[in-house]
Amino acid sequence: MTDISLSLKVCDIKEQGLLERLQSFCAQEIVGDDAAVMQIEPGKSLVITTDVLVDGVHFSEGTTSPEDAGWRAAAANLSDLAAMGAEPLAITVGLGIRGDTLVSWVERLYQGMTSCLKQYNTLIVGGDIVRSPVNTLSITAFGQVNSKRIIRRSAAQPGDAIVVTGVHGASRAGLELLLHPELAQNLNPDARDALILAHQRPRPRLDVLPFLWSSLEDSPRVAGMDSSDGLADAVVQICQASGVGARIERDRIPIPKQLSEIVSAEQALNWALYGGEDFELVLCLPPVAAEIFVQKLDVGAAIVGAIAADKDILLVDKNKKYPDEPLMRSRGFQHF
Amino acid sequence: MTDISLSLKVCDIKEQGLLERLQSFCAQEIVGDDAAVMQIEPGKSLVITTDVLVDGVHFSEGTTSPEDAGWRAAAANLSDLAAMGAEPLAITVGLGIRGDTLVSWVERLYQGMTSCLKQYNTLIVGGDIVRSPVNTLSITAFGQVNSKRIIRRSAAQPGDAIVVTGVHGASRAGLELLLHPELAQNLNPDARDALILAHQRPRPRLDVLPFLWSSLEDSPRVAGMDSSDGLADAVVQICQASGVGARIERDRIPIPKQLSEIVSAEQALNWALYGGEDFELVLCLPPVAAEIFVQKLDVGAAIVGAIAADKDILLVDKNKKYPDEPLMRSRGFQHF
Repeated sequence: MTDISLSLKVCDIKEQGLLERLQSFCAQEIVGDDAAVMQIEPGKSLVITTDVLVDGVHFSEGTTSPEDAGWRAAAANLSDLAAMGAEPLAITVGLGIRGDTLVSWVERLYQGMTSCLKQYNTLIVGGDIVRSPVNTLSITAFGQVNSKRIIRRSAAQPGDAIVVTGVHGASRAGLELLLHPELAQNLNPDARDALILAHQRPRPRLDVLPFLWSSLEDSPRVAGMDSSDGLADAVVQICQASGVGARIERDRIPIPKQLSEIVSAEQALNWALYGGEDFELVLCLPPVAAEIFVQKLDVGAAIVGAIAADKDILLVDKNKKYPDEPLMRSRGFQHF
Repeated sequence: MTDISLSLKVCDIKEQGLLERLQSFCAQEIVGDDAAVMQIEPGKSLVITTDVLVDGVHFSEGTTSPEDAGWRAAAANLSDLAAMGAEPLAITVGLGIRGDTLVSWVERLYQGMTSCLKQYNTLIVGGDIVRSPVNTLSITAFGQVNSKRIIRRSAAQPGDAIVVTGVHGASRAGLELLLHPELAQNLNPDARDALILAHQRPRPRLDVLPFLWSSLEDSPRVAGMDSSDGLADAVVQICQASGVGARIERDRIPIPKQLSEIVSAEQALNWALYGGEDFELVLCLPPVAAEIFVQKLDVGAAIVGAIAADKDILLVDKNKKYPDEPLMRSRGFQHF
C-alpha cells in the first residue's frame, strides 16, 4: 500500500488546497482576512499584510515597466490595509534578484514603490536583498486601526447595503488595451490612457475611510474587503465568511462608459465582475449609512445590491430581462 | 558618449553597493540596524525585520531538511528581534513555490518554522503563497520593545566591555561535518551531533534579554547586534556605526572544545570569527554591568574585549605570542 499523500504536489491541490493545509500551522483566529490583526494595546490594533510578486508570473517586462510593477505592488499592499480599515504605518521590502539584473531596473522598481507610498505618507523602513535565479518582490505592509473599526469579511448582516467605492472593469480593460492595442481604434486617446492608467497605477482607497467612519457615526458595524481579485470574488468571500447571501443588481454595477467603445456590454460586465485588480473597496453596511457614505464619494461609488438572509449569491436584473445568475469566485485569479 | 550607469548590473556592485543605492528610497533614520524600529505609542516601539531565503542559495535539499530550513529561517528572524532587544509578537510568511514541489515538503517547512516559533510563543499570523519557478521563503517578524531599551549598533562607547552570549564556531563546524563526514573520525558521536545541531537548529538568544535588563538596572545603555554574519562582522559593524574601535582578546573568544578534535586551533579561531550563523548576541555595555550579565548566563558567555576610542578594530594577544591582527567584515557572507 502506498501513501498517496507523500507524492502529492502543490500543482495537484492548487493555492487554495495548500492554504487550507497550512492553516493548521497558523494562528487560525487571525488569518483569513485581507490582513492579520493583532491587538497591541487596549483599543488599538496592528494590521499586517504580505504579498509576494514573481517576475514572469505577476509582472513582466512586456506589459509592465519596473516603475509600474513597483507602484502596483505597493498599492496592492496598501489596499489590503484599507480593506481592514487601517491607516498605513510603513512597509518592508524583501527582494530576490538575479545578478545580471540592471541596477537601473531595481532603482526604477523602488522609484515606483516610493511614488505610490509617498501619496499615503508611507515609508520603506527595511527589508532584505538576496541573490535569486528569479526576480521576486515580497512586500509586508503594516498599519494601525482603532480596534472598534476593524473591517472584517465576516461581519455582513442580512439587509446591509453593498457599496462599491468606484468603477469596476477599468483595470482589466487597461490590460487588454496594452495586450491588444487595436482594441483602442474607436476610443479617444484620453479615454484609452485613463483605462491603461487604471491598470498601471491603481489607487488604494485609503481616502474613503474618513468618509466611512463619519457616515457610520455611533455604530461602526461594517464588513468588507477589497476587489483586487474581482468584484464577484469579493462579494462571494464576504458572504461565505459571514454566512449570508447577496443580490447584486446588474444595472447598478458602475462600469466605465468607455468600455462600451471597445467590447460588448456583456463582456464589459464580465470584466467588471471578474476582471480583478480594480482595488476598490466592497463594503456592507446599514442602508441609511450606505446612502450617506456613497454621497460623500466620487462618481463611480454606488450601492450595488444587498445582503440576503439565504445563502444564494446572485446577479439579478430588476427589469427581468436577464435570468438570475450565481456569482462565483472561480473566474478570478488562480495562482497555480 | 555612453552612460555606463545604464548598463551597470547588480553583480557589478554586489549587495552592499545595491543597498547603498536603494537607501535613498528608504526612511534613512530607520534602516541600518538588525531591524527597523517605529515608535507606535509613547514609550513603546514596534520592531520589524525581513529575511528572504532562496532554494539553492540559502538552503538546499543536500544539507538541509525542510524542517531545518524552516527552523533556521524562523530563528534568524527572531534573532534579529533579540538583537534589537525586542520580544517577538508574530511573523508573516511569503512563499513562492514551484508547482511540482511536494506538498509534504511545504508542510515540513512549516513544521520546522512552528517548532522554533513555539519555543518563543510566537505565531504565524499571515502571509501569501504564490507560484514561482524557484522556491523562496520570505519571513517578516514583528516584535515590540520598551523604547528606552532598544539595542542599536551605534551606541557603543570607549571603555565598554564587549560581551558574547555564547560560543562561536559551532555552526560552521556543524556545516563542515555535514559536508565532510570524515572530519568526525576523532569525535565522539554526541559531540558531533551537538555541533550539527548548532548548525541545523540555532537558537535566537531572546532568553538573555531579561538578564541584560536586570544587569543594566537604571542605565540601560547598550549597543549590539547578533553574530549571524560572524563575530568579526558584528564587532566591525558595531564599531563603524558607533565611530569607535575595539580590541578583541584572542584567548577570550569562547570556542567549543570539540573543534580542536577536527581542525587546528588556527582554523577553529577562523570559524569562530568568520564562520557566521551562531546567532549569539554581541553586546557592548559598561564593564561592571557586563560582569554581572555574564555571570547570569550559561557557559560560553564571555567578555571578549573592549571598545576603544581610536578606530582600530584589532584581534590582540595578551601573551604577545601573535601580532595584532585587524578584524574584517570581508570574510563574512557576500550575497552576490
